[in-house]
Amino acid sequence: MKALEIVKEDRLARLGILKTEHSDVETPVFMPVGTQGTVKATTHKDLKEMGIKIILANAYHLYLRPGDSLIREMGGIHRFSGWDGSVLTDSGGYQIFSLGVLREIKEEGVLFQSHIDGSKHFLSPERIVEVQENIGADISMCLDECVPYPSSYEYTKASVELTSRWAKRCKNAKQDEGKLLFGIVQGGFYKDLRLKSAGDLVDMDFDGYAVGGLSVGEPKSIMWEMVDTVLELLPREKPRYLMGLGFPEDIVEGVKKGIDMFDCVIPTRHARNGNLFTWNGRINIKNTKYTKDEAPVDEECACYTCRTFSRAYLRHLFVSHELTSYYLNTLHNIFFYADLLKKVREAIYRGVFEAFYNEFKTRWKGGEVQDEYSICNG
Amino acid sequence: MKALEIVKEDRLARLGILKTEHSDVETPVFMPVGTQGTVKATTHKDLKEMGIKIILANAYHLYLRPGDSLIREMGGIHRFSGWDGSVLTDSGGYQIFSLGVLREIKEEGVLFQSHIDGSKHFLSPERIVEVQENIGADISMCLDECVPYPSSYEYTKASVELTSRWAKRCKNAKQDEGKLLFGIVQGGFYKDLRLKSAGDLVDMDFDGYAVGGLSVGEPKSIMWEMVDTVLELLPREKPRYLMGLGFPEDIVEGVKKGIDMFDCVIPTRHARNGNLFTWNGRINIKNTKYTKDEAPVDEECACYTCRTFSRAYLRHLFVSHELTSYYLNTLHNIFFYADLLKKVREAIYRGVFEAFYNEFKTRWKGGEVQDEYSICNG
Repeated sequence: MKALEIVKEDRLARLGILKTEHSDVETPVFMPVGTQGTVKATTHKDLKEMGIKIILANAYHLYLRPGDSLIREMGGIHRFSGWDGSVLTDSGGYQIFSLGVLREIKEEGVLFQSHIDGSKHFLSPERIVEVQENIGADISMCLDECVPYPSSYEYTKASVELTSRWAKRCKNAKQDEGKLLFGIVQGGFYKDLRLKSAGDLVDMDFDGYAVGGLSVGEPKSIMWEMVDTVLELLPREKPRYLMGLGFPEDIVEGVKKGIDMFDCVIPTRHARNGNLFTWNGRINIKNTKYTKDEAPVDEECACYTCRTFSRAYLRHLFVSHELTSYYLNTLHNIFFYADLLKKVREAIYRGVFEAFYNEFKTRWKGGEVQDEYSICNG
Repeated sequence: MKALEIVKEDRLARLGILKTEHSDVETPVFMPVGTQGTVKATTHKDLKEMGIKIILANAYHLYLRPGDSLIREMGGIHRFSGWDGSVLTDSGGYQIFSLGVLREIKEEGVLFQSHIDGSKHFLSPERIVEVQENIGADISMCLDECVPYPSSYEYTKASVELTSRWAKRCKNAKQDEGKLLFGIVQGGFYKDLRLKSAGDLVDMDFDGYAVGGLSVGEPKSIMWEMVDTVLELLPREKPRYLMGLGFPEDIVEGVKKGIDMFDCVIPTRHARNGNLFTWNGRINIKNTKYTKDEAPVDEECACYTCRTFSRAYLRHLFVSHELTSYYLNTLHNIFFYADLLKKVREAIYRGVFEAFYNEFKTRWKGGEVQDEYSICNG
């Protein structure tokens, strides 16, 4: 099954259609994060209204609660959650290393403790594929080891080799032919190890390839160097997914290099902290200067929040700790990201992506909140 | 200006139209509580879709934050908040006595400390009317003193007399002729004082009358005795508002006695605690028995939550502390209350309210969570 149909290319940027069991998704696409099966502080109907066709959920979280066997018994994540769009599940590798208490990485798999109740769990590559098939994800990810920055060459090399062996076992364990399985390129911050990892996975012929283990504390220039290195090896005709990024400027950068898929908690998490994205950069709605500001968050934005509410009112809701504030802010930020990707796709279609990219970068710098160094995955 | 047009009567129950500047509201009506200018964990568009035409806001909260002068400067609560339905503001009397740190009740007004930052404030009856006019409420309430249960006869008597003098001053202070001002009947739990209070206020000829100071810890039988006492004196042609109640069974009880308007935090607050209302009583979605329950919260309910999600999924969201849980639960409970009142109005229109009342009471008892003694105002 061919996962990606490339419709148009503009230099390295690509416009495509990602074909999954539940929907055809136009790429480049940003997938909002619905860790526990729901995108925080919003609803499925809002996502549908905004044209969102794919969300990301975390196998790690759903495995722990409510459990993949329960989800399977309830007919899979789509039936269980009422979301009829596509779902990509992260394998849990990253979450085990960042959220759970890691006990041991063994050839057979990973032993860890739950961040919820401290209970001990063992997940093998085979089991993590089964978990994701039980969940019913349209796209599953292989189990991988995500090394911290910095890590030694020796450690990273052994880790890449393990990740490759795990990837092979994941591929062999896959049973549901209607679903897609992506490999995750690791290799820390060593070009040759990134190339080794990418080469191993490409040889295994996955449905798509993710670049993982980035944005974990390294300088941005090094991060993009790794992306460039990996992209040279990845086959043109398959979907490319940059995991866990990022800010809008990271996304346009990734698109420019030929990335098709993105996910990140930034739009949703920032929304809950009052950070709102606009075409002129980012603002924090808590700022006292918005106390009497009758303008919407972004004059150019057509979301419900911007069509209906002033900055002054949104500030009032935020400083009053109203739950409605998190909801309205989240709606806006998700809409902004969806709108950004829509404009990105239009620019590629019209063959003017580079001009779009330059204009975006220039305008973006005007925001009152300059992007801190982005540790999206931190 | 005549505030209420009575369309139909069925024994003591009344079907009417409450005429306010921003909308004509069918009564009996339940007003969701939007303390700080927004109904917690939902949005204006959801309320509109559910047919909600009037919400309650608290003058006390809005006076403290963002301040009535700011709201006035921003064009009033409707323009400021984007809510184009009607708004009734509680005067703040009750909140000062329950939330703020009360410092002194004087003939001139009330001295209190803010629950937010401890700052000291003085509000006179004249000022509280000005606050509500600055907010731009369709319906304002007089400043009143709400006495605790139990209170001595002497204290309650002096308090009723003060509340009557304050009511007179509120009436004199009112400037905006397009808006309505309601008196609040107090008198604690002494029939003669309730009659004295009602008599005083009726003589002042308010646009409508509220029964206040109930559900503060007294037995329910005594509460309804006070309601019965007061209702005998209130003019038939004016709206009657039972403040701060209550559970669905309290509402049908009040309607039966001739009450037109209700408000209470119960549907919204209970939603955030996982308590969901159904036509067969109340359930708590956290209950483990819902872990695999594929049924909606209520088979008869047409709300978005019930149309889309199973109890199993809603339980998962609740135990996972997802903000979306509070939102979906709130939607359901508000819809349930709106639907209840709609059915109440239909029954009155068809002259079968008593049969409706009896059937409702019978079914309601089937709920897994029996209503605790209702201290709605506590």
